[in-house]
Amino acid sequence: MRVLGVDPGLTRCGVGVVEGVAGRPLTMIGVGVVRTPADAELSHRLLAVEQGIEQWLDEHRPEYVAVERVFSQHNVRTVMGTAQASAVAMLCAARRGIPVALHTPSEVKAAVTGSGRADKAQVGAMVTRLLRLAEPPRPADAADALALAICHIWRAPAQNRLQQAVARHAVHATKGRTA
Amino acid sequence: MRVLGVDPGLTRCGVGVVEGVAGRPLTMIGVGVVRTPADAELSHRLLAVEQGIEQWLDEHRPEYVAVERVFSQHNVRTVMGTAQASAVAMLCAARRGIPVALHTPSEVKAAVTGSGRADKAQVGAMVTRLLRLAEPPRPADAADALALAICHIWRAPAQNRLQQAVARHAVHATKGRTA
Repeated sequence: MRVLGVDPGLTRCGVGVVEGVAGRPLTMIGVGVVRTPADAELSHRLLAVEQGIEQWLDEHRPEYVAVERVFSQHNVRTVMGTAQASAVAMLCAARRGIPVALHTPSEVKAAVTGSGRADKAQVGAMVTRLLRLAEPPRPADAADALALAICHIWRAPAQNRLQQAVARHAVHATKGRTA
Repeated sequence: MRVLGVDPGLTRCGVGVVEGVAGRPLTMIGVGVVRTPADAELSHRLLAVEQGIEQWLDEHRPEYVAVERVFSQHNVRTVMGTAQASAVAMLCAARRGIPVALHTPSEVKAAVTGSGRADKAQVGAMVTRLLRLAEPPRPADAADALALAICHIWRAPAQNRLQQAVARHAVHATKGRTA
C-alpha cells in the first residue's frame, strides 16, 4: 500500500509518501514541502499548490491520499487557507480516481505516538523511528505528512473491515426487503 | 466586461454571468446552480463543483471571475465547505489565467442595494431590477452569484484606478531610487 500524506497549508503544504502494510516495517518513498509565496494572490497560490501536488502524484503514483481533516475551531486566521489547500489536494486525487481519506490531527498523533495529545517533537521523533530515518524530517509539516500516511496504513485494515461489514449489512438489509 | 460571479457552496454553488460596463444597463448572460449530493464523499463533491465551474467557463468565457470572500466567523458547520468550494472556483479561473476578484458579502449587498446589511429578498429584488428580469432568480444562491458579478463590474473602475495609481507610484519610487 503506497500512501501520499498531505498536511495542507498555503505557505507550506507538507507531502510525504510511505509504502507498507500494517504490522510490517514501513518505507519512506519521499518527503517534501510545497511552498507558495505569502504575497501572491490567493488564486495563484492555490494553482501553485495544485501544480505541486500533481507533481507528487505523477512521480510517486500513490494508491491512497490521506489528508488532514481541517476543523474550523483552529486558528481562525489560517484555517481558511488550510481548508482551501486541503480542497486542492482532495480534488487532485479525486480527478485521478485515487481514494481520499481524512484523518484528524489527534487520530494521527494517537496512531504514531499512542497519544492524541502528543506534541510536534514527539510526532517527529516517532516518524523518524518508524521510518528508520537518520534524523527527523524538517519542517514539521513534512513530518506531519509522513505521520498522516503512516496513520492511514495502520488504520486502513480496521476501516476496510468496517466498510465490508457495512456492505454485508446493506446486502442483508436488501435481501430482507426483497424476501 | 463579462464576469462570472460565484456564490461558493458544496450543496448549492450559485453561478451567474453578467455583461456590461459601469454606468450602462447590464445584461444577464446566464444563471444557475452547481449542486452536489450531501451524502457523497467530500473529494467527489469538490470534483463535481470543478466540473460544473469548468462547464460554465467553457460555455461563457468570462474575462473575470468574482467569488464571495469567505469569513471564518460565519456558520462554523458550513464554512469549511464554502471555503473549499471557493478554492475550487478560484483554481479553475487561475488555471485559465482569468483574473479572480474576491468581494465580501457586505460589499456585494452595498453595491446592489446601497446597504451592506440588506437581506436576501432585497438583493434578489435589486438583481431582478438591474438585469431587467421577469422575476427574481431562484434559489437565492443564483441571485447572489449575479449580485457578485454586478458588484465586480461596478467596483472594477475604482479598483483599476487604484492599481494604476499603485503602479505609477512604484515607477516613481524606482526612478527615485535609480536617480
